[in-house]
Amino acid sequence: MATQAPSLLARTKTPHHGISGAEIPFTLGIASYTFREFSLEETIAMTSRLAIKNLCLKSMHMPLQSTPAEIRGMAAKVTEAGINLYGAGVVYMKNIEEVDQAFTYAKIAGMKVIVGVPEHELLDYCSNKVKETGINIAIHNHGPGDTKYPSPESVYERVKHLNPGMGLCIDIGHTARIGLDPTKETARFMDRVLDIHIKDVDKAEETGETCEIGHGVIDIPGFLKMLFKKNYNNIVSFEFEKDGKDPLPGLAESVGYVRGVLKMIT
Amino acid sequence: MATQAPSLLARTKTPHHGISGAEIPFTLGIASYTFREFSLEETIAMTSRLAIKNLCLKSMHMPLQSTPAEIRGMAAKVTEAGINLYGAGVVYMKNIEEVDQAFTYAKIAGMKVIVGVPEHELLDYCSNKVKETGINIAIHNHGPGDTKYPSPESVYERVKHLNPGMGLCIDIGHTARIGLDPTKETARFMDRVLDIHIKDVDKAEETGETCEIGHGVIDIPGFLKMLFKKNYNNIVSFEFEKDGKDPLPGLAESVGYVRGVLKMIT
Repeated sequence: MATQAPSLLARTKTPHHGISGAEIPFTLGIASYTFREFSLEETIAMTSRLAIKNLCLKSMHMPLQSTPAEIRGMAAKVTEAGINLYGAGVVYMKNIEEVDQAFTYAKIAGMKVIVGVPEHELLDYCSNKVKETGINIAIHNHGPGDTKYPSPESVYERVKHLNPGMGLCIDIGHTARIGLDPTKETARFMDRVLDIHIKDVDKAEETGETCEIGHGVIDIPGFLKMLFKKNYNNIVSFEFEKDGKDPLPGLAESVGYVRGVLKMIT
Repeated sequence: MATQAPSLLARTKTPHHGISGAEIPFTLGIASYTFREFSLEETIAMTSRLAIKNLCLKSMHMPLQSTPAEIRGMAAKVTEAGINLYGAGVVYMKNIEEVDQAFTYAKIAGMKVIVGVPEHELLDYCSNKVKETGINIAIHNHGPGDTKYPSPESVYERVKHLNPGMGLCIDIGHTARIGLDPTKETARFMDRVLDIHIKDVDKAEETGETCEIGHGVIDIPGFLKMLFKKNYNNIVSFEFEKDGKDPLPGLAESVGYVRGVLKMIT
């Protein structure tokens, strides 16, 4: 097993530095599902306020059925704010047309990754699209009750023989909710980890819910130390599901916590 | 020089624990000047949302000229929310009547400390009031332009021979703005440090302004490590002056950052 998936960051990341000045090899982003009750403009404004430089847009902020001109216009709003529009998702893909639509959409928007949930029988087709376009697919594990991709392993086993651009968006909250250790699982499958949803949950059980990072049960320092040690060099995106109508304070506390821990790591 | 000022916490603090489980000897609070554009009720709600358990009220939230019944009513709102109303301030005291008023007010409210700025000629009188009431005075340094107490040393030199309950509320932002190292200054005068205003500033100059903790020039990890090493056991209160009309996101990020660092310290 290789120790590192291909980096999607290339020249777009803003390096973080810890106390010793050592560079953190990954950078922070936001999954815009966090702002599902808000407009694209409000999403950009809140992302900017937190000085986060990477955004993965969910369809309510950039509808999948938009025209190319509409997609270009919306993408321009993000990039003109100095934010890297690195991905789309979570995108559900139930047939070939939806796969094609997602790749066309991502290509027009200039995205590097589709955080997605393709039907199992579409994985070979997706792998070919990845090879053809250079746009990766990061499959999202959704925990207990998800019949397709409940755990990181359930994704890994289905993509490990495919193009290296077929990988995982590990959601550490759903990983904890299914009773697995997010740090161990992420380390196990690091050679295919293309994106991460970072969050905390109040219980490591099916009924666990998102809470402010630091208030829940996930060992965030241990998780971040592992990413640093393993030289993870993609994006770590906050997905804060709590307080949908007023997520900024809880998201901000979570961002601050992660920044504080990162400052101490190196 | 003793290494530790008398603790104001007694049985009221909620201990914080780091990774090793070691207890952080101090606890976090908020200086309500942060919420100067909001009501007492909103101040309590925002403090609770951040799970902060200690509050120091500024006069716009509990006017100094309130009747005893009014003070008791307002204090009850705080304590009924599970928050320790540990202090008042910053209170300016220009004559004996204002000193008496502040002590009467603090006593009725059940506060342990008055974060204050007494005129120099009132310090002996204040020291006697501290001895008489058991309520301490923590004098606040306000940086360049403050003719009474610009630096921590300017406070210390005037109180070191007085009752041990006469001490400092070190504001680390104003300490940085006057060109001093907040960590060194706080360590130097630790035997009289009764309260702390924690914040970050964008420049270590007179024109420096508060920013979210982690975004500015103050070495917050170094400062917190020093407090831990020196066994500081009073309160560390956030005073976030930025975004007066919408301070919660920036305050929340600052709180998260400090919690992340504290988690890593032990």
